Amino acid sequence: MSLPIQPVETEVTTDWDAKMAARAVKMTSSVIRELLKLTEKPDIISFAGGLPAAELFPIREFREACEYVLTTNGSKALQYGATEGYTPLREYLSEKMQKYGVPAEVENIIITNGSQQALDLIGRIFLDKGDVVITERPTYLGALQAWRAYEPQFATVPLDDDGMCVDELEPVLKAHQGKVKFIYVLPNFHNPAGTTLPLERRIELVRLAAKYGVPIVEDDPYGELRFEGEDITPIETLHKENVIYLSTFSKTLAPGIRIGWVTAPSKIISKLVQAKQGADLHTGVFVQMVAHDICSRGLLRSHVKKVREAYYERRNAMLQAMEEHFPAGVTWTRPQGGLFLWVRLPPQIDTTEFMKTALEEKVAYVPGAAFYPDEGDHNAMRLNFSYCRPEIIREGIQRLARAIMREFG
Amino acid sequence: MSLPIQPVETEVTTDWDAKMAARAVKMTSSVIRELLKLTEKPDIISFAGGLPAAELFPIREFREACEYVLTTNGSKALQYGATEGYTPLREYLSEKMQKYGVPAEVENIIITNGSQQALDLIGRIFLDKGDVVITERPTYLGALQAWRAYEPQFATVPLDDDGMCVDELEPVLKAHQGKVKFIYVLPNFHNPAGTTLPLERRIELVRLAAKYGVPIVEDDPYGELRFEGEDITPIETLHKENVIYLSTFSKTLAPGIRIGWVTAPSKIISKLVQAKQGADLHTGVFVQMVAHDICSRGLLRSHVKKVREAYYERRNAMLQAMEEHFPAGVTWTRPQGGLFLWVRLPPQIDTTEFMKTALEEKVAYVPGAAFYPDEGDHNAMRLNFSYCRPEIIREGIQRLARAIMREFG
Repeated sequence: MSLPIQPVETEVTTDWDAKMAARAVKMTSSVIRELLKLTEKPDIISFAGGLPAAELFPIREFREACEYVLTTNGSKALQYGATEGYTPLREYLSEKMQKYGVPAEVENIIITNGSQQALDLIGRIFLDKGDVVITERPTYLGALQAWRAYEPQFATVPLDDDGMCVDELEPVLKAHQGKVKFIYVLPNFHNPAGTTLPLERRIELVRLAAKYGVPIVEDDPYGELRFEGEDITPIETLHKENVIYLSTFSKTLAPGIRIGWVTAPSKIISKLVQAKQGADLHTGVFVQMVAHDICSRGLLRSHVKKVREAYYERRNAMLQAMEEHFPAGVTWTRPQGGLFLWVRLPPQIDTTEFMKTALEEKVAYVPGAAFYPDEGDHNAMRLNFSYCRPEIIREGIQRLARAIMREFG
Repeated sequence: MSLPIQPVETEVTTDWDAKMAARAVKMTSSVIRELLKLTEKPDIISFAGGLPAAELFPIREFREACEYVLTTNGSKALQYGATEGYTPLREYLSEKMQKYGVPAEVENIIITNGSQQALDLIGRIFLDKGDVVITERPTYLGALQAWRAYEPQFATVPLDDDGMCVDELEPVLKAHQGKVKFIYVLPNFHNPAGTTLPLERRIELVRLAAKYGVPIVEDDPYGELRFEGEDITPIETLHKENVIYLSTFSKTLAPGIRIGWVTAPSKIISKLVQAKQGADLHTGVFVQMVAHDICSRGLLRSHVKKVREAYYERRNAMLQAMEEHFPAGVTWTRPQGGLFLWVRLPPQIDTTEFMKTALEEKVAYVPGAAFYPDEGDHNAMRLNFSYCRPEIIREGIQRLARAIMREFG
């Protein structure tokens, strides 16, 4: 159809700014997103993004799965589906989680549009304005962004090379008693810090959370990407009645299909389902069926092995290059898995301002300040080691070293 | 990895109910969703859902598009993408909207996870607790569900066989002056009522909205599915600075890919993008590329023609069967497109209670009460005519007629 454009003459126009909700006035585009725009120039080596290695994506497996799903069950794949998610995928995840130590039944699982939607839905069902969320300091930027829409306050617990300093948690719980809705923790290969929480700290965290009647939100997007050391029992395993666990296929399979999941007590899953009905009805059936097909053929396991090996090599390249080129006074974490590590420059360097120097040297990172809900350390940065090949990583670290030396000079 | 299950002994357990946000306490599962569960038995003819005809899905086109996208650009399709959406798809939609009479540039478009997410994001950026939203009475259930999360009040304007009674709008605008955030309207083949708003009413609506400085949210999922009469200029065309327009591929291509879009002034799109970052980062790149491939080959147009013809035949089958079998005192709308029509039974019949009789006769619908934000008519029902084949529709209407006769008896 083709209709002529015939605007109506009107005298008054809406004052859009006056129509915005309080939460929208406060919204700003994520620092990471804005920085990524600067770092998209082809001559810049970017350690800023959190992107998986694109050249490892299992494209052939996706092609075969798409063909299979559409040929055998196309009208189901293209139709509306259940808000909870595609049942066979939930069944697969139930088995997967049980192998991982979490006794999750199908009714304990909801499929989301990536972990980011899970964070949003958790905010939606728990957070009234002014409620308190306890996070690590630093913590995942996307969680802060999701929850700020619900206008909570953030209270923080510092993090060292072994993740959350659980021995500093109790005073924070006490200070906000009755107002804390949950404790948010990234136990494995922390984003941004790259740290892993030891079993003793997990046990102590579970004890404290139970003592204060506060649930734990365990965000575990990278748990399967361990390339060194031994797996550690998930927090959910230690006290499943009190933990909401999140994971995703974004880092193991592909982020472009947007599939994450939550395991939690079934009454929490029911609330998340109600919240998701209003938010987007359901996650696409087609991509869920494709992911299920790839997983049920056992292809995820072999693919994850390949990803893990590649990221191990890349992390090693980054660690080695930093050893060689960074001056004394610069320190960093040594992640046993995942995608990120955390670098601390001498205290006089503000990494947000230092971005300018780094970009002149054609290298990029995310300034540490982005990962703090409150005032944080200004001399830290997050580096990603999953996206670039080892030789690019080595070159990028040399550029970063040159930029650091310029600040020292 | 395989870890033993070692729960920690704890004494106190979280009181989850006490942790819920006020909005979550009020959340209940949608009436439609719960009813759909009852109507899923294979011997029931259901006019309750809003499902497109599954046998018409362009499965071959999807297979070819998946193969093409993954073969030529798989690593882009499976990687993270922009929150705004896949640029070539936004370019295609810009052209499409311009043909439709709406001068939308790429910067005026955001891709969402179906229209439902667009409704949610609109609520997120506009609605503070206690704000007023003006809707038609009845209105789309999914919009009510999305916005209730933001705790607004609803004010309503009645609807007749020509859609919103715009001559009754001004008193409502006046009564809530300064508190109204937007007017929500479904101008084409209304869900649930099947009505279409004539041009004169659209012009008057635009004038009144501008006079009171209140934006219009124009929800148009079915506009392309007109099988009778002439297209009518979209409200957005009449005053694009003041209108947020929503549409979707769910009814033209397939709902299982969850792709909708919004066109609006670019500053509103920017806010929606910020809101979507927190909500789910972005819509899946793969399905956007697949939809773009199908559309850019011109396959959408020919497919929509087929859908339109099929729904025309089905609507005719339903109208004819109702003429033949329904007793005097029952009236209904005569939609010129879309998926739904609206039936009114004599006032003594409450269609929520009447569901029991209908289910005994093995036929289902959605009770009218579900579509009112406040007290509504209890004697109406929504019937879907897109999902069932004509012979099933005829049989279903006969069953419904028998159920009605039982109430009269």
